[in-house]
Amino acid sequence: MSSKIPGNLIIGQSGGATAVINASLVGAVEAAFADQRIGGIYGMLHGIEGLLKEELIDLRQQPVDVWQQLLHTPSAALGSCRYKLHDHDLERTIEILRRYDIRSMLYIGGNDSADTAHCLAEAAEQIGYDLSILSIPKTIDNDLPFTDHCPGYGSAARFIAQATQDSALNTISIPWHYPVKIIETMGRDAGWLTASSALGKRDESDPPHILLLPEQPFIANRFLTQVEEVYKKLGYVIVVAAETIRDDKGQTLGSVGQVGVDAFQHPLLSGTAQYLVDLVKRELKLRARFDKPGDLQRMSSAHISITDRDEAYLVGKMGVHALLDGESDKMVTLIRHDEPTYHCITGLAELDKVANVQRLLPDRYLNQDKTMVTSAFYDYALPLIGGPLIQHTRLEMTRVRQ
Amino acid sequence: MSSKIPGNLIIGQSGGATAVINASLVGAVEAAFADQRIGGIYGMLHGIEGLLKEELIDLRQQPVDVWQQLLHTPSAALGSCRYKLHDHDLERTIEILRRYDIRSMLYIGGNDSADTAHCLAEAAEQIGYDLSILSIPKTIDNDLPFTDHCPGYGSAARFIAQATQDSALNTISIPWHYPVKIIETMGRDAGWLTASSALGKRDESDPPHILLLPEQPFIANRFLTQVEEVYKKLGYVIVVAAETIRDDKGQTLGSVGQVGVDAFQHPLLSGTAQYLVDLVKRELKLRARFDKPGDLQRMSSAHISITDRDEAYLVGKMGVHALLDGESDKMVTLIRHDEPTYHCITGLAELDKVANVQRLLPDRYLNQDKTMVTSAFYDYALPLIGGPLIQHTRLEMTRVRQ
Repeated sequence: MSSKIPGNLIIGQSGGATAVINASLVGAVEAAFADQRIGGIYGMLHGIEGLLKEELIDLRQQPVDVWQQLLHTPSAALGSCRYKLHDHDLERTIEILRRYDIRSMLYIGGNDSADTAHCLAEAAEQIGYDLSILSIPKTIDNDLPFTDHCPGYGSAARFIAQATQDSALNTISIPWHYPVKIIETMGRDAGWLTASSALGKRDESDPPHILLLPEQPFIANRFLTQVEEVYKKLGYVIVVAAETIRDDKGQTLGSVGQVGVDAFQHPLLSGTAQYLVDLVKRELKLRARFDKPGDLQRMSSAHISITDRDEAYLVGKMGVHALLDGESDKMVTLIRHDEPTYHCITGLAELDKVANVQRLLPDRYLNQDKTMVTSAFYDYALPLIGGPLIQHTRLEMTRVRQ
Repeated sequence: MSSKIPGNLIIGQSGGATAVINASLVGAVEAAFADQRIGGIYGMLHGIEGLLKEELIDLRQQPVDVWQQLLHTPSAALGSCRYKLHDHDLERTIEILRRYDIRSMLYIGGNDSADTAHCLAEAAEQIGYDLSILSIPKTIDNDLPFTDHCPGYGSAARFIAQATQDSALNTISIPWHYPVKIIETMGRDAGWLTASSALGKRDESDPPHILLLPEQPFIANRFLTQVEEVYKKLGYVIVVAAETIRDDKGQTLGSVGQVGVDAFQHPLLSGTAQYLVDLVKRELKLRARFDKPGDLQRMSSAHISITDRDEAYLVGKMGVHALLDGESDKMVTLIRHDEPTYHCITGLAELDKVANVQRLLPDRYLNQDKTMVTSAFYDYALPLIGGPLIQHTRLEMTRVRQ
């Protein structure tokens, strides 16, 4: 289905925000400004949830410098939502769009948002309302199919890679103080973000030493043996663990039922990192502590990858171009070329094939015991983080002779 | 006591590392290179603990570019320690220094390190060994007396200030998802670092909304009332809490005895942030989660304050100059001038007055209920973070009219 009249355009942001999701908004808005066929340019506040409440703002009525500044502002400037459209919402949404004469929509989000966009496209077709709708990919989890990678991932990967090198330096300066460090990452069901913590690792002894990925069931004994081996060799161990790793029964580590009870016998949860810290302390008698950057990893304005930002801008811009070309019910994708140097062009994928499909970290990026990445992963991920990390140096250990 | 012969110089780093502690090392080494009276320039590995094991490296035998690169490398390149000198160590230390003909020492560290330096200076005098020893301040906690501030604090403060603004953007993008966010900071007994989270706050509704400082006893009911008030007004609440806040009995929140027991009836600890998350969930029925940057706040290479780095370099350099002037048993201090613009010169303070004294956050920097800073704190701390934070922008909320 394609719209012959672009009419008014509406843009929304949805799902977990990223450091560059606003760049996609800017790319779309600037492309829309440049084409006279487009009438009003509207933003829905808090995604589809705001659209249902008719909370629409006018993106033509903004200070001129706001777009340049938004390129440096993490998170969703339009506000986000995590709302699953019910059947009874669909008709009402189309009715609102009709009232505002909105014929084109860009929805910037992840898997769930792609599903929302697809449902709306189908509903419009059924009702016979002429609407073009495209999904613009974003997720730090990098788990969308049909795109080489997802805007938002490169910046989060840069943060985690740099944070792992930086934080490990503290452990290395005095290894016997807290010899085991756990760094907890996001990443839902896919290990892309956890894997990216290794992007600053140059040799085997460099941190991180063990990755705990959500795709791999956690086996406590195997983990403890690995920690002990690295500790014996180096005197310290840096572990990067996804907050969603699960034991062989599918239970998230540190979730209710695994930890204990409070004074009132209410079940406690500790979170993954604290669970691992407690495990290492109890079983190996080694002092351990954790860093949990939490939302910082999706939001750090000092770690925005320029490549990621440029690509986020590109998919937003190309989304508008595709709408103008009459495309609908598709997601803009990144198609990668590594020759002569890394660059991406965009493509389109059918939304019904994208929605609710998760792309996990493939086995070829993992070593045999699946706790470290291979060189193929470096080839894949290094170009995405926007230039080399801040490099650390070491002193030469030339001893003084008496 | 002063040394007439600078002889060989030794430098050590001690205590918790910072993002700029290496700049003090570079400042000292470059000043020592520039003065022909100084013979060998040695580094002790892992502070006094390495000196006792005669683990000394030759700082004249380093690649030429290492010093420039160390200015960008967080953590203690010489390694650090947290070792309290025993009486029986003192004589042995002096004997080792004598064997290597070391007549000058710089010890870069915090309160405990100042105490170590002072004990060594006293022991040398008692034994009659001609030794000049100075302490170079460093600590992210900013709790040393007699210095306007401590090198290391400005960079950690920059990190926490930026992290609070960045991370809060995620909450704001979808407030009802997790309306309460706790950000846990370091800071031992002093609230300087926690207070610095407010340095990006421009008006009352900006994050952070509540500071929990280690100087103030935690009163759960008062805290919960404050959270509820902010939540009712804004729909979300950003709390920044020191990991060392204590209840009215002096117990750290989330420590053993406060949380519960595991399946084997072993006592659990949760840490401060998880404790607060659980409290908010249980008592206010609000979804809450936390960021715990942990060692990142002392190590983030992307958040080094240029001012902080320059001052760390300065105190190292002036330490060598003071040694050459015959000074000993003192700590280099920063003396601040705000006219015509912010700048620091250095001074000296007697080590016996510095050692083991903690400078807490004074009341004039806190509002009436002691959960937010005053404008006087901004005047104090803003110049230390090395330029403005990355500024975020917002869209104008001009509604679309039908």
